Amino acid sequence: MNRPAKRTGRRPGPNTTRALIEDTAREQFARLGYDRTSMRQIAIEAGVDPALVSHYFGSKLDLFLAVVELPIDPSELIDHVTSGEPDSAGVRLATVVLDILDDEVRRRPIVGMIRAATSEPEAARLVREFLTRNLVVPIAERLDADHADYRAGLVMSQTIGLTLARYIVGIEPLASHPRELVAADLGATLQRYLLGELSHPPIDQEGADHELAPRRVRHDLPARPADVGHPAP
Amino acid sequence: MNRPAKRTGRRPGPNTTRALIEDTAREQFARLGYDRTSMRQIAIEAGVDPALVSHYFGSKLDLFLAVVELPIDPSELIDHVTSGEPDSAGVRLATVVLDILDDEVRRRPIVGMIRAATSEPEAARLVREFLTRNLVVPIAERLDADHADYRAGLVMSQTIGLTLARYIVGIEPLASHPRELVAADLGATLQRYLLGELSHPPIDQEGADHELAPRRVRHDLPARPADVGHPAP
Repeated sequence: MNRPAKRTGRRPGPNTTRALIEDTAREQFARLGYDRTSMRQIAIEAGVDPALVSHYFGSKLDLFLAVVELPIDPSELIDHVTSGEPDSAGVRLATVVLDILDDEVRRRPIVGMIRAATSEPEAARLVREFLTRNLVVPIAERLDADHADYRAGLVMSQTIGLTLARYIVGIEPLASHPRELVAADLGATLQRYLLGELSHPPIDQEGADHELAPRRVRHDLPARPADVGHPAP
Repeated sequence: MNRPAKRTGRRPGPNTTRALIEDTAREQFARLGYDRTSMRQIAIEAGVDPALVSHYFGSKLDLFLAVVELPIDPSELIDHVTSGEPDSAGVRLATVVLDILDDEVRRRPIVGMIRAATSEPEAARLVREFLTRNLVVPIAERLDADHADYRAGLVMSQTIGLTLARYIVGIEPLASHPRELVAADLGATLQRYLLGELSHPPIDQEGADHELAPRRVRHDLPARPADVGHPAP
């Protein structure tokens, strides 16, 4: 992360420029989602020079990580999971996930994000765009897996579900089961989702099971609203 | 379900005895959880004869299903999944789950329950006790699987996670991927969780990998609070 350490503390006072940028960014990420938020617009709304935003925070990703305070360094995590034997990538990912979540301090922002994602469309959008695109899709791509987006969704489904079942809902004995054992069981699932054979209709190869379903499911199927369950207007 | 159909509609008027019992039950299930709620206590709080509660609703499970209005008949679902080839139990379970969730009307109460479970300890307790014990553990037991409780937790983790990823957070292309294909991919995971080899320490058989971890993990490990992230007092 290339955030310049101009100051020793993160936020020396409530009204510094840095804090102002952070507050504006936090609000804008929440309101617009990760994709539609721009460094330039944050600068305009904060009333500062756009160059100052990059100067303090580096990239948009760095700024996002700074304000959301996720206990994850994406590039480090991606490197860790994708270096080494491909056969054990799933277990490495599961182990990192459990290491983070078993630590109460690191777990808190993630639990908060998942909680928010279940009730606020903006938070759901952030989880969808940020965690998927910046963490899981790159992992699948670096492992040379086909259908990286679909695989990333499956990985996210099991990872979010594990967070809920083990740490939020607290289903026993899963909740108190030793970390290494859960990592092994979870890891086998993530391994299959990342690199195993899946039943997805082949988009990038001919033949096989494409009669099972339309080839371009994203466009052939009616869109399913992501935020179902919210009160209709 | 042996709920007597004494009346044609569910709730003929806001102040009938039946509606009063339902309201009291709803409140008590939410406050005390499934286990600590009793038919007798509901009757007392509603100021009606305990016999009337059984008369209208049958068992506690029936009453719970009536007030929570889950779109699931547990015994039917358990029968469906556990009848037929054990090798395809996972796919059958995944297919039922997706059939329910792809139907917006049936999905709504489940999404509501999961939403509530992420922020309210009482709802979390209900999910934990009710769905796990009355649905998933019986399925694992009927399939003669060892460690049914642990397996149920893993199944719940993937099922809750799928609900979040596909329907609440809406991660694409998983969210619009054809149901049968997701059922196949999910089914393989559920199959392994239900009947496959897992790394759990053997409790009911000697030898093997018991050196990996304490044998009775529930008691040897410090309890992890289920409702982490809630503001400490």
